[in-house]
Amino acid sequence: MQNLPALVVLLTVLLQFGTMYAVGHARGKYRIEAPATSGHPAFDRAYRVQLNTLESTVMFLPALWLATHYGYVLWAGVAGLVWIAGRVWYAFAYLGDASKRGGGYMVGMVGWAALMVMGALGFGRALIAG
Amino acid sequence: MQNLPALVVLLTVLLQFGTMYAVGHARGKYRIEAPATSGHPAFDRAYRVQLNTLESTVMFLPALWLATHYGYVLWAGVAGLVWIAGRVWYAFAYLGDASKRGGGYMVGMVGWAALMVMGALGFGRALIAG
Amino acid sequence: MQNLPALVVLLTVLLQFGTMYAVGHARGKYRIEAPATSGHPAFDRAYRVQLNTLESTVMFLPALWLATHYGYVLWAGVAGLVWIAGRVWYAFAYLGDASKRGGGYMVGMVGWAALMVMGALGFGRALIAG
Repeated sequence: MQNLPALVVLLTVLLQFGTMYAVGHARGKYRIEAPATSGHPAFDRAYRVQLNTLESTVMFLPALWLATHYGYVLWAGVAGLVWIAGRVWYAFAYLGDASKRGGGYMVGMVGWAALMVMGALGFGRALIAG
Repeated sequence: MQNLPALVVLLTVLLQFGTMYAVGHARGKYRIEAPATSGHPAFDRAYRVQLNTLESTVMFLPALWLATHYGYVLWAGVAGLVWIAGRVWYAFAYLGDASKRGGGYMVGMVGWAALMVMGALGFGRALIAG
Repeated sequence: MQNLPALVVLLTVLLQFGTMYAVGHARGKYRIEAPATSGHPAFDRAYRVQLNTLESTVMFLPALWLATHYGYVLWAGVAGLVWIAGRVWYAFAYLGDASKRGGGYMVGMVGWAALMVMGALGFGRALIAG
Protein backbone atom coordinates (compact mmCIF):
# COMPACT_ATOMS: atom_id res chain seq x y z
CA MET A 1 0.00 0.00 0.00
CA GLN A 2 2.82 2.41 0.89
CA ASN A 3 4.32 1.79 -2.54
CA LEU A 4 1.26 2.81 -4.54
CA PRO A 5 1.95 6.59 -4.55
CA ALA A 6 5.58 5.83 -5.46
CA LEU A 7 4.36 3.75 -8.41
CA VAL A 8 2.17 6.68 -9.47
CA VAL A 9 5.20 9.00 -9.35
CA LEU A 10 7.16 6.52 -11.49
CA LEU A 11 4.32 6.32 -14.05
CA THR A 12 3.97 10.11 -14.07
CA VAL A 13 7.62 10.52 -15.03
CA LEU A 14 7.25 7.87 -17.75
CA LEU A 15 4.21 9.79 -19.06
CA GLN A 16 6.34 12.96 -19.31
CA PHE A 17 8.98 10.97 -21.14
CA GLY A 18 6.37 9.64 -23.55
CA THR A 19 5.04 13.12 -24.41
CA MET A 20 8.62 14.41 -24.81
CA TYR A 21 9.42 11.48 -27.09
CA ALA A 22 6.34 12.23 -29.23
CA VAL A 23 7.57 15.82 -29.73
CA GLY A 24 11.06 14.67 -30.68
CA HIS A 25 9.58 12.14 -33.10
CA ALA A 26 7.31 14.76 -34.73
CA ARG A 27 10.27 17.18 -34.88
CA GLY A 28 12.17 14.67 -36.96
CA LYS A 29 9.23 13.46 -39.07
CA TYR A 30 8.02 16.94 -40.07
CA ARG A 31 11.52 18.49 -40.06
CA ILE A 32 10.77 21.24 -37.53
CA GLU A 33 14.26 22.53 -36.69
CA ALA A 34 14.83 23.68 -33.07
CA PRO A 35 14.27 26.28 -31.68
CA ALA A 36 11.02 26.41 -33.74
CA THR A 37 7.98 24.99 -31.93
CA SER A 38 5.44 25.03 -34.73
CA GLY A 39 5.19 24.36 -38.46
CA HIS A 40 2.94 21.31 -38.91
CA PRO A 41 -0.45 20.56 -37.30
CA ALA A 42 0.69 17.13 -36.04
CA PHE A 43 3.82 18.67 -34.49
CA ASP A 44 1.72 21.45 -32.92
CA ARG A 45 -0.56 18.86 -31.34
CA ALA A 46 2.38 16.83 -29.98
CA TYR A 47 3.91 20.01 -28.53
CA ARG A 48 0.60 21.02 -26.90
CA VAL A 49 0.24 17.53 -25.43
CA GLN A 50 3.71 17.80 -23.89
CA LEU A 51 3.14 21.28 -22.46
CA ASN A 52 -0.36 20.51 -21.20
CA THR A 53 0.88 17.30 -19.59
CA LEU A 54 3.65 19.33 -17.95
CA GLU A 55 1.17 21.94 -16.63
CA SER A 56 -1.07 19.19 -15.36
CA THR A 57 1.80 17.33 -13.68
CA VAL A 58 2.84 20.42 -11.72
CA MET A 59 -0.72 20.57 -10.35
CA PHE A 60 -0.88 16.81 -9.81
CA LEU A 61 2.30 15.83 -7.95
CA PRO A 62 1.88 18.40 -5.13
CA ALA A 63 -1.77 17.27 -4.76
CA LEU A 64 -0.61 13.64 -4.61
CA TRP A 65 1.91 14.60 -1.95
CA LEU A 66 -0.73 16.48 0.09
CA ALA A 67 -3.20 13.57 0.11
CA THR A 68 -0.44 11.09 0.99
CA HIS A 69 1.02 13.41 3.63
CA TYR A 70 -2.36 13.53 5.41
CA GLY A 71 -2.62 9.75 5.49
CA TYR A 72 -4.86 8.94 2.50
CA VAL A 73 -2.15 6.68 1.07
CA LEU A 74 -4.34 4.04 -0.58
CA TRP A 75 -6.96 6.44 -1.93
CA ALA A 76 -4.30 8.88 -3.08
CA GLY A 77 -2.73 6.03 -5.01
CA VAL A 78 -6.07 5.09 -6.58
CA ALA A 79 -6.85 8.71 -7.51
CA GLY A 80 -3.32 8.95 -8.91
CA LEU A 81 -3.89 5.93 -11.16
CA VAL A 82 -7.15 7.52 -12.37
CA TRP A 83 -5.22 10.68 -13.23
CA ILE A 84 -2.55 8.66 -15.08
CA ALA A 85 -5.21 6.75 -17.05
CA GLY A 86 -6.98 10.00 -17.97
CA ARG A 87 -3.77 11.71 -19.05
CA VAL A 88 -2.64 8.76 -21.19
CA TRP A 89 -6.06 8.75 -22.89
CA TYR A 90 -5.84 12.54 -23.32
CA ALA A 91 -2.36 12.30 -24.89
CA PHE A 92 -3.25 9.60 -27.43
CA ALA A 93 -6.59 11.21 -28.33
CA TYR A 94 -5.09 14.72 -28.73
CA LEU A 95 -2.19 13.44 -30.86
CA GLY A 96 -4.77 12.17 -33.35
CA ASP A 97 -7.35 14.96 -33.20
CA ALA A 98 -7.44 18.08 -30.96
CA SER A 99 -11.24 17.96 -30.69
CA LYS A 100 -11.10 14.53 -28.98
CA ARG A 101 -9.03 15.65 -25.98
CA GLY A 102 -12.04 16.29 -23.70
CA GLY A 103 -12.68 12.79 -22.31
CA GLY A 104 -9.20 12.04 -21.02
CA TYR A 105 -8.91 15.59 -19.73
CA MET A 106 -12.04 15.19 -17.62
CA VAL A 107 -10.92 11.82 -16.19
CA GLY A 108 -7.58 13.39 -15.25
CA MET A 109 -9.37 16.30 -13.55
CA VAL A 110 -11.52 13.86 -11.52
CA GLY A 111 -8.39 12.12 -10.19
CA TRP A 112 -6.76 15.47 -9.43
CA ALA A 113 -9.89 16.90 -7.76
CA ALA A 114 -10.16 13.80 -5.54
CA LEU A 115 -6.57 14.39 -4.37
CA MET A 116 -7.32 18.05 -3.65
CA VAL A 117 -10.38 17.10 -1.59
CA MET A 118 -8.25 14.62 0.41
CA GLY A 119 -5.57 17.28 0.90
CA ALA A 120 -8.06 19.94 2.04
CA LEU A 121 -9.83 17.44 4.30
CA GLY A 122 -6.57 16.29 5.84
CA PHE A 123 -5.46 19.89 6.38
CA GLY A 124 -8.80 20.76 8.02
CA ARG A 125 -8.65 17.73 10.32
CA ALA A 126 -5.06 18.51 11.29
CA LEU A 127 -6.05 22.09 12.17
CA ILE A 128 -8.93 20.90 14.38
CA ALA A 129 -6.73 18.26 16.04
CA GLY A 130 -4.26 21.09 16.72
CA MET B 1 2.90 25.38 12.52
CA GLN B 2 3.66 22.05 10.81
CA ASN B 3 0.62 22.54 8.57
CA LEU B 4 1.67 25.94 7.21
CA PRO B 5 3.91 24.63 4.39
CA ALA B 6 1.15 22.13 3.49
CA LEU B 7 -1.33 25.02 3.26
CA VAL B 8 1.12 26.83 0.99
CA VAL B 9 1.32 23.76 -1.27
CA LEU B 10 -2.49 23.62 -1.41
CA LEU B 11 -2.70 27.32 -2.33
CA THR B 12 0.05 26.89 -4.94
CA VAL B 13 -1.95 24.18 -6.70
CA LEU B 14 -5.09 26.34 -6.57
CA LEU B 15 -3.07 29.19 -8.11
CA GLN B 16 -2.06 26.90 -10.99
CA PHE B 17 -5.68 25.92 -11.41
CA GLY B 18 -6.70 29.59 -11.51
CA THR B 19 -4.18 30.46 -14.23
CA MET B 20 -5.22 27.37 -16.23
CA TYR B 21 -8.86 28.36 -15.87
CA ALA B 22 -8.09 31.89 -17.15
CA VAL B 23 -6.49 30.40 -20.29
CA GLY B 24 -9.47 28.11 -20.90
CA HIS B 25 -11.84 31.04 -20.40
CA ALA B 26 -9.88 33.24 -22.84
CA ARG B 27 -9.71 30.34 -25.31
CA GLY B 28 -13.51 30.22 -25.38
CA LYS B 29 -14.09 33.98 -25.28
CA TYR B 30 -11.70 34.84 -28.12
CA ARG B 31 -12.30 31.58 -30.00
CA ILE B 32 -8.68 30.43 -30.08
CA GLU B 33 -9.00 26.79 -31.21
CA ALA B 34 -6.48 24.31 -29.74
CA PRO B 35 -3.66 23.61 -30.51
CA ALA B 36 -3.18 27.35 -31.24
CA THR B 37 -1.68 29.31 -28.34
CA SER B 38 -2.01 32.85 -29.66
CA GLY B 39 -4.42 35.02 -31.63
CA HIS B 40 -5.68 37.74 -29.29
CA PRO B 41 -3.65 39.97 -26.92
CA ALA B 42 -5.84 39.06 -23.91
CA PHE B 43 -5.42 35.34 -24.65
CA ASP B 44 -1.67 35.81 -25.09
CA ARG B 45 -1.45 37.48 -21.68
CA ALA B 46 -3.49 34.71 -20.00
CA TYR B 47 -1.23 32.10 -21.61
CA ARG B 48 1.93 33.92 -20.50
CA VAL B 49 0.54 34.19 -16.97
CA GLN B 50 -0.06 30.43 -16.90
CA LEU B 51 3.37 29.54 -18.27
CA ASN B 52 5.22 32.05 -16.10
CA THR B 53 3.33 30.83 -13.02
CA LEU B 54 4.32 27.28 -13.98
CA GLU B 55 7.99 28.23 -14.39
CA SER B 56 7.90 30.05 -11.09
CA THR B 57 6.20 27.15 -9.28
CA VAL B 58 8.90 24.70 -10.39
CA MET B 59 11.46 27.03 -8.77
CA PHE B 60 9.28 27.63 -5.72
CA LEU B 61 8.13 24.20 -4.50
CA PRO B 62 11.64 22.69 -4.32
CA ALA B 63 12.83 25.82 -2.47
CA LEU B 64 9.89 25.48 -0.05
CA TRP B 65 10.83 21.83 0.49
CA LEU B 66 14.49 22.71 1.12
CA ALA B 67 13.70 25.38 3.74
CA THR B 68 11.19 23.08 5.46
CA HIS B 69 13.55 20.10 5.27
CA TYR B 70 16.22 22.07 7.13
CA GLY B 71 13.80 22.97 9.91
CA TYR B 72 12.67 26.49 9.01
CA VAL B 73 9.05 25.35 9.03
CA LEU B 74 7.37 28.53 10.27
CA TRP B 75 9.52 30.95 8.26
CA ALA B 76 9.27 28.79 5.16
CA GLY B 77 5.49 28.95 5.51
CA VAL B 78 5.57 32.73 5.89
CA ALA B 79 7.90 33.16 2.87
CA GLY B 80 5.60 30.80 0.98
CA LEU B 81 2.57 32.97 1.73
CA VAL B 82 4.52 36.03 0.55
CA TRP B 83 5.28 34.19 -2.72
CA ILE B 84 1.60 33.22 -3.13
CA ALA B 85 0.48 36.82 -2.51
CA GLY B 86 3.02 38.13 -5.02
CA ARG B 87 2.05 35.60 -7.67
CA VAL B 88 -1.70 36.26 -7.27
CA TRP B 89 -1.02 39.99 -7.64
CA TYR B 90 1.21 39.28 -10.65
CA ALA B 91 -1.49 37.15 -12.32
CA PHE B 92 -4.31 39.66 -11.93
CA ALA B 93 -2.12 42.63 -12.92
CA TYR B 94 -0.66 40.88 -16.00
CA LEU B 95 -4.10 39.68 -17.18
CA GLY B 96 -5.12 43.34 -17.38
CA ASP B 97 -1.91 44.93 -18.67
CA ALA B 98 1.49 43.28 -19.35
CA SER B 99 3.38 46.41 -18.24
CA LYS B 100 1.94 46.14 -14.71
CA ARG B 101 3.38 42.70 -13.94
CA GLY B 102 6.52 44.01 -12.18
CA GLY B 103 5.22 44.55 -8.64
CA GLY B 104 3.77 41.12 -8.03
CA TYR B 105 6.76 39.54 -9.72
CA MET B 106 9.16 41.26 -7.31
CA VAL B 107 7.12 40.25 -4.24
CA GLY B 108 7.13 36.65 -5.46
CA MET B 109 10.90 36.78 -5.96
CA VAL B 110 11.39 38.08 -2.42
CA GLY B 111 9.47 35.11 -0.99
CA TRP B 112 11.39 32.70 -3.21
CA ALA B 113 14.79 34.26 -2.39
CA ALA B 114 14.04 34.01 1.35
CA LEU B 115 13.39 30.27 0.91
CA MET B 116 16.63 29.84 -1.03
CA VAL B 117 18.59 31.61 1.72
CA MET B 118 17.00 29.30 4.33
CA GLY B 119 17.79 26.27 2.18
CA ALA B 120 21.42 27.32 1.63
CA LEU B 121 21.83 28.20 5.31
CA GLY B 122 20.35 24.88 6.41
CA PHE B 123 22.57 23.00 4.00
CA GLY B 124 25.67 24.87 5.23
CA ARG B 125 24.81 24.20 8.88
CA ALA B 126 24.15 20.51 8.18
CA LEU B 127 27.56 20.22 6.45
CA ILE B 128 29.35 21.82 9.44
CA ALA B 129 27.43 19.66 11.92
CA GLY B 130 28.54 16.65 9.84
CA MET C 1 25.74 11.83 2.39
CA GLN C 2 22.14 12.65 3.39
CA ASN C 3 22.70 16.23 2.22
CA LEU C 4 23.76 15.36 -1.31
CA PRO C 5 20.22 15.08 -2.78
CA ALA C 6 19.33 18.35 -1.00
CA LEU C 7 22.36 20.02 -2.64
CA VAL C 8 21.16 18.69 -6.00
CA VAL C 9 17.71 20.23 -5.39
CA LEU C 10 19.36 23.56 -4.53
CA LEU C 11 21.47 23.47 -7.71
CA THR C 12 18.42 22.50 -9.79
CA VAL C 13 16.54 25.58 -8.60
CA LEU C 14 19.59 27.77 -9.33
CA LEU C 15 19.70 26.25 -12.83
CA GLN C 16 16.05 27.25 -13.38
CA PHE C 17 16.88 30.72 -12.16
CA GLY C 18 19.81 30.92 -14.59
CA THR C 19 17.69 29.94 -17.60
CA MET C 20 14.96 32.40 -16.51
CA TYR C 21 17.57 35.12 -16.17
CA ALA C 22 18.89 34.41 -19.69
CA VAL C 23 15.37 34.89 -21.10
CA GLY C 24 14.87 38.16 -19.23
CA HIS C 25 18.29 39.35 -20.42
CA ALA C 26 17.49 38.45 -24.06
CA ARG C 27 14.07 40.10 -23.69
CA GLY C 28 15.77 43.37 -22.81
CA LYS C 29 18.68 43.08 -25.26
CA TYR C 30 16.51 42.29 -28.32
CA ARG C 31 13.55 44.36 -27.13
CA ILE C 32 10.99 41.53 -27.18
CA GLU C 33 8.04 43.05 -25.31
CA ALA C 34 5.97 40.67 -23.14
CA PRO C 35 3.72 38.79 -23.80
CA ALA C 36 5.61 38.02 -27.04
CA THR C 37 7.87 34.95 -26.82
CA SER C 38 9.68 35.18 -30.13
CA GLY C 39 11.22 37.79 -32.43
CA HIS C 40 14.97 37.19 -32.50
CA PRO C 41 16.85 33.87 -32.94
CA ALA C 42 18.94 34.42 -29.78
CA PHE C 43 15.79 35.16 -27.76
CA ASP C 44 14.08 32.09 -29.22
CA ARG C 45 17.01 29.92 -28.16
CA ALA C 46 17.03 31.36 -24.63
CA TYR C 47 13.28 30.74 -24.37
CA ARG C 48 13.63 27.14 -25.61
CA VAL C 49 16.45 26.54 -23.12
CA GLN C 50 14.22 27.76 -20.28
CA LEU C 51 11.20 25.69 -21.34
CA ASN C 52 13.23 22.56 -22.07
CA THR C 53 15.02 22.89 -18.72
CA LEU C 54 11.60 23.22 -17.07
CA GLU C 55 10.27 20.12 -18.84
CA SER C 56 13.39 18.22 -17.91
CA THR C 57 13.24 19.34 -14.26
CA VAL C 58 9.67 18.07 -13.88
CA MET C 59 10.93 14.65 -15.01
CA PHE C 60 14.08 14.89 -12.89
CA LEU C 61 12.97 15.94 -9.40
CA PRO C 62 10.36 13.15 -9.00
CA ALA C 63 12.96 10.62 -10.24
CA LEU C 64 15.47 12.02 -7.71
CA TRP C 65 12.84 11.66 -4.99
CA LEU C 66 12.06 8.06 -6.01
CA ALA C 67 15.69 6.94 -5.95
CA THR C 68 16.29 8.68 -2.61
CA HIS C 69 13.02 7.33 -1.16
CA TYR C 70 14.14 3.78 -1.91
CA GLY C 71 17.45 4.28 -0.14
CA TYR C 72 19.88 5.02 -3.00
CA VAL C 73 20.83 8.31 -1.34
CA LEU C 74 24.48 8.51 -2.37
CA TRP C 75 23.99 7.19 -5.92
CA ALA C 76 20.92 9.35 -6.41
CA GLY C 77 23.02 12.35 -5.44
CA VAL C 78 25.77 11.36 -7.88
CA ALA C 79 23.27 10.78 -10.72
CA GLY C 80 21.70 14.13 -9.82
CA LEU C 81 25.06 15.90 -10.16
CA VAL C 82 25.54 14.23 -13.56
CA TRP C 83 22.10 15.54 -14.62
CA ILE C 84 22.98 19.05 -13.38
CA ALA C 85 26.31 19.00 -15.26
CA GLY C 86 24.59 17.81 -18.46
CA ARG C 87 21.85 20.43 -18.21
CA VAL C 88 24.32 23.28 -17.58
CA TRP C 89 26.34 22.17 -20.61
CA TYR C 90 23.10 21.90 -22.64
CA ALA C 91 22.00 25.40 -21.64
CA PHE C 92 25.29 27.13 -22.52
CA ALA C 93 25.71 25.17 -25.77
CA TYR C 94 22.10 25.79 -26.92
CA LEU C 95 22.27 29.53 -26.10
CA GLY C 96 25.15 29.78 -28.59
CA ASP C 97 23.96 27.36 -31.28
CA ALA C 98 20.85 25.12 -31.35
CA SER C 99 22.70 22.36 -33.23
CA LYS C 100 25.17 21.92 -30.34
CA ARG C 101 22.57 20.98 -27.72
CA GLY C 102 22.94 17.21 -28.18
CA GLY C 103 25.92 16.46 -25.89
CA GLY C 104 24.61 18.08 -22.74
CA TYR C 105 21.16 16.67 -23.43
CA MET C 106 22.52 13.11 -23.56
CA VAL C 107 24.53 13.54 -20.32
CA GLY C 108 21.39 14.84 -18.61
CA MET C 109 19.40 11.86 -19.89
CA VAL C 110 22.03 9.43 -18.53
CA GLY C 111 21.73 10.97 -15.04
CA TRP C 112 17.92 10.88 -15.26
CA ALA C 113 17.82 7.29 -16.57
CA ALA C 114 20.09 6.14 -13.71
CA LEU C 115 17.61 7.65 -11.22
CA MET C 116 14.70 5.91 -12.96
CA VAL C 117 16.51 2.57 -12.80
CA MET C 118 17.13 3.07 -9.07
CA GLY C 119 13.48 4.04 -8.55
CA ALA C 120 12.16 1.02 -10.48
CA LEU C 121 14.62 -1.30 -8.71
CA GLY C 122 13.69 0.07 -5.30
CA PHE C 123 9.99 -0.27 -6.10
CA GLY C 124 10.46 -3.87 -7.28
CA ARG C 125 12.45 -4.80 -4.18
CA ALA C 126 9.85 -3.20 -1.89
CA LEU C 127 7.08 -5.19 -3.61
CA ILE C 128 8.96 -8.46 -3.15
CA ALA C 129 9.77 -7.63 0.50
CA GLY C 130 6.04 -6.97 0.96
